[in-house]
Amino acid sequence: MFEKTTRMNFLIDIYESLLTEKQKSYVSLYYLEDLSLGEIAEEFEVSRQAVYDNIKRTEAVLENYETKLGVLQKYQEREQLIEQIEQHLTQHKQLDDGVAALLQQLKNMD
Amino acid sequence: MFEKTTRMNFLIDIYESLLTEKQKSYVSLYYLEDLSLGEIAEEFEVSRQAVYDNIKRTEAVLENYETKLGVLQKYQEREQLIEQIEQHLTQHKQLDDGVAALLQQLKNMD
Repeated sequence: MFEKTTRMNFLIDIYESLLTEKQKSYVSLYYLEDLSLGEIAEEFEVSRQAVYDNIKRTEAVLENYETKLGVLQKYQEREQLIEQIEQHLTQHKQLDDGVAALLQQLKNMD
Repeated sequence: MFEKTTRMNFLIDIYESLLTEKQKSYVSLYYLEDLSLGEIAEEFEVSRQAVYDNIKRTEAVLENYETKLGVLQKYQEREQLIEQIEQHLTQHKQLDDGVAALLQQLKNMD
């Protein structure tokens, strides 16, 4: 469950601008704000089942964008490479403050 | 015109999986294959104006995705940072083959 939540947090963060307002609000409250299905249902005065169905559909929409664009996949591959660069430079005592700062900027960009 | 073509090449490359088949075919033939509007019109047996209108609309669709997701923008910013890292390491004589290869992998990833 933790992994699913983390993945959804990433996917929402990346693709939320492509979601409708309703899709964005339900899925954000559930995954980012950690509200329960019941709490969201109460707030929007709809059934718990309606919230659940909407969130499942939005998850599929987000996964579909990721299948097509792969922004998260590439982000994770880049993170690994940056990690390898840091390790390599550290091992060879070449990681000075200047490069460390630039690599940090590169990480923060995503 | 060159800059526009380059930009469209990037945007098509990034977002083509979000286009319809028709959008993708016209815009790809025009920008990637360098066919003229007249040649595309002839191939699809439609008017030159229809091809032109479709391509203009697809350009707007691509720019809209870029406004929302900014994949090209982030790519360009990362390229600059990687360039700076290479320059910094070169200046400090810290750019060995290992790091150079990793940085190249990072560039090729996008």
